[in-house]
Amino acid sequence: MTATFAELWAEIAPIGRDDKGGYLRYALSKPELVLRDWFRNQADRRDMPVTEDGNGNLFAWWGQPWGAGTVLTGSHFDSVPHGGGFDGPLGIVSAFLAVDLLRDRGLRPAKPIAVAAFVEEEGGRFGVPCLGSRLLTGVIDPDRAAALRDGDGVRFGEALGGRPAGALPMLNRVSAVVELHIEQGRALCEGAAPVGVASAIWPHGRWRMEFAGDGDHAGTTRMVDRHDPMLTFAHTVLAANAEARLAGAHATIARVAVEPNATNAIPSLVRGWLDARAADEPTLNAVVEAVVKRAVERAGQDGTRVSVEPESVSPEVAFDVALADRLAGLLGGAPILPTGAGHDAGVLSAHVPTAMLFVRNPTGVSHSPAEHATEADCVAGVEALAQVLGELT
Amino acid sequence: MTATFAELWAEIAPIGRDDKGGYLRYALSKPELVLRDWFRNQADRRDMPVTEDGNGNLFAWWGQPWGAGTVLTGSHFDSVPHGGGFDGPLGIVSAFLAVDLLRDRGLRPAKPIAVAAFVEEEGGRFGVPCLGSRLLTGVIDPDRAAALRDGDGVRFGEALGGRPAGALPMLNRVSAVVELHIEQGRALCEGAAPVGVASAIWPHGRWRMEFAGDGDHAGTTRMVDRHDPMLTFAHTVLAANAEARLAGAHATIARVAVEPNATNAIPSLVRGWLDARAADEPTLNAVVEAVVKRAVERAGQDGTRVSVEPESVSPEVAFDVALADRLAGLLGGAPILPTGAGHDAGVLSAHVPTAMLFVRNPTGVSHSPAEHATEADCVAGVEALAQVLGELT
Repeated sequence: MTATFAELWAEIAPIGRDDKGGYLRYALSKPELVLRDWFRNQADRRDMPVTEDGNGNLFAWWGQPWGAGTVLTGSHFDSVPHGGGFDGPLGIVSAFLAVDLLRDRGLRPAKPIAVAAFVEEEGGRFGVPCLGSRLLTGVIDPDRAAALRDGDGVRFGEALGGRPAGALPMLNRVSAVVELHIEQGRALCEGAAPVGVASAIWPHGRWRMEFAGDGDHAGTTRMVDRHDPMLTFAHTVLAANAEARLAGAHATIARVAVEPNATNAIPSLVRGWLDARAADEPTLNAVVEAVVKRAVERAGQDGTRVSVEPESVSPEVAFDVALADRLAGLLGGAPILPTGAGHDAGVLSAHVPTAMLFVRNPTGVSHSPAEHATEADCVAGVEALAQVLGELT
Repeated sequence: MTATFAELWAEIAPIGRDDKGGYLRYALSKPELVLRDWFRNQADRRDMPVTEDGNGNLFAWWGQPWGAGTVLTGSHFDSVPHGGGFDGPLGIVSAFLAVDLLRDRGLRPAKPIAVAAFVEEEGGRFGVPCLGSRLLTGVIDPDRAAALRDGDGVRFGEALGGRPAGALPMLNRVSAVVELHIEQGRALCEGAAPVGVASAIWPHGRWRMEFAGDGDHAGTTRMVDRHDPMLTFAHTVLAANAEARLAGAHATIARVAVEPNATNAIPSLVRGWLDARAADEPTLNAVVEAVVKRAVERAGQDGTRVSVEPESVSPEVAFDVALADRLAGLLGGAPILPTGAGHDAGVLSAHVPTAMLFVRNPTGVSHSPAEHATEADCVAGVEALAQVLGELT
């Protein structure tokens, strides 16, 4: 008795949903903990034992946990604030259903298959995206990760219940990683195929920019006497947009924090986070340098001060070319496309041959409730993932 | 046994103070409730009965409560977030000390004196400044006031413990209002006098501007496909600054709220609050219109939408000219100066002959921990207030 895509999807759809159809599923928050319980329950129903890695990542096993040649699939449950429901969970739901399909077809895989739920992929709670896969692969120090704080001051280590375990030696038993994900763009909409294969992830990063000025009364302070960091911030927002357009890159300042953030008080401090991405690293670096230069120039004019701190910078990820070609062939000539979004698969690809499958998103929208995939395309995604897992095991 | 200024000031200095010397004293929050207890205690020590008006305002009485010819003094305890400690509390502390001085001198006032603590003068919690005096004078509807919400969704009516009482008929027994306040500027620093008298409050207001766009993934959405409301917001911040400079007015956008406010998600909505002030109403209106026009033009370019809602608009307040002249003369030719800041005295001035005394602020800074007055100037302020209260009763 196998569940359908629609049935599984309906089970998780209400969890963490806001009144506008968006999702608040921060890592290790209540809704995400409910989704983790759902994960364990799905694994139980399939007689798949669940292991944890001490970093907040869960794995449900068909076959010997961390046995030789393990093939890893899955994705993440956490969302950006008020984001869509497909980004992450689609990869986990599809993985369980692909296991069902392979069992229905009588497959007895020669290698273990693990369905993974990675923690804090979005960085929406503790600020570092792909935190779970960064810990697992040893590219972030467990003490640094433990000390990351959310907006309420709670440390990741507290939310996790202890210091993260860090790099997992068993990772070298993994022969391949395949993450299925909703497409975050409309490239697949231009063709007939509902499923594509990833070629690369653009190099990308986030930089925290601090604009410091002098707090004062907004009503009584003469315009010429002000050192208002909101002006420097605003100029930098527009500069980031202009520089990205000039370079054919992406740059965005979408998050801001103001002190004191009162209508009648000139701010003493404005923080803005620059998200920048480009097809290659020289372009990315040039865009960030140009934005910082323009911010500093404007600060000279405003009598404010600018400082910039990289929070996470990821080099270009080129997925395994041979694996991508093999999977595209297997899927009847599926399109191969790059993406500007980071993923746990991107972090893992530095350590293990890794591929990603993308499912068509007619709106092209992502990180918003408008993100969408049709049921038929999701079912096609499950079929494609099953074919790939069957081939790789 | 009379307390000194330094003693009383030291009692309240720690209440609601942050680790940088700023204050978090939101109306009806814990620190402000502690200050209200302190107020009752001070009144008790002086055998001054305390009355409440059902709107959150407190009055400590020397003489018959609301007796004929009542002279009202005092100010407010609440602060802007991380603001200075003088804005508000200085007027209340000085009022109690002025009562002490007059008693030491054997005055038996012919009219009652009330020391007032008005609620929510800054509008820092519920968004409408001078909320207590607006209720008391009937210029805001009690149901509208009750429904105002703070950032956590708590309604003013809940924080108050019931529907506000609204306009107080006894207000027509008041013969004069005198509010002492720290100067929010450096006009007094140019002369020798530590205390000045207010001539007028500039017309001023706050407008909530909503910039609506399309939420999307900051990494994957092509620059040309974006409808990013942060760009329209940033342009409007710079436009407000430029238009105010051109007009000789003040305009500031110092408070912002972003949805979802995530580093990797193009916002669906940015809210910005425009604070604008000018020496006359035509100039104020022209500045606000120019800012809105430039916001709407930019929205056309960005593919976003702008809406504007006035939250509170106060016409010019010209304080009672005869009273100001009389007090300036009494204080030995104290300077008479206008201010860009709103005050409860400004709201009351439409109903009662009203004056304000300003105490010199060497930094000129306000709404920031840098706001300051020397102890000697504060003592001079108490003396001036005592002289004025003696004269008016």
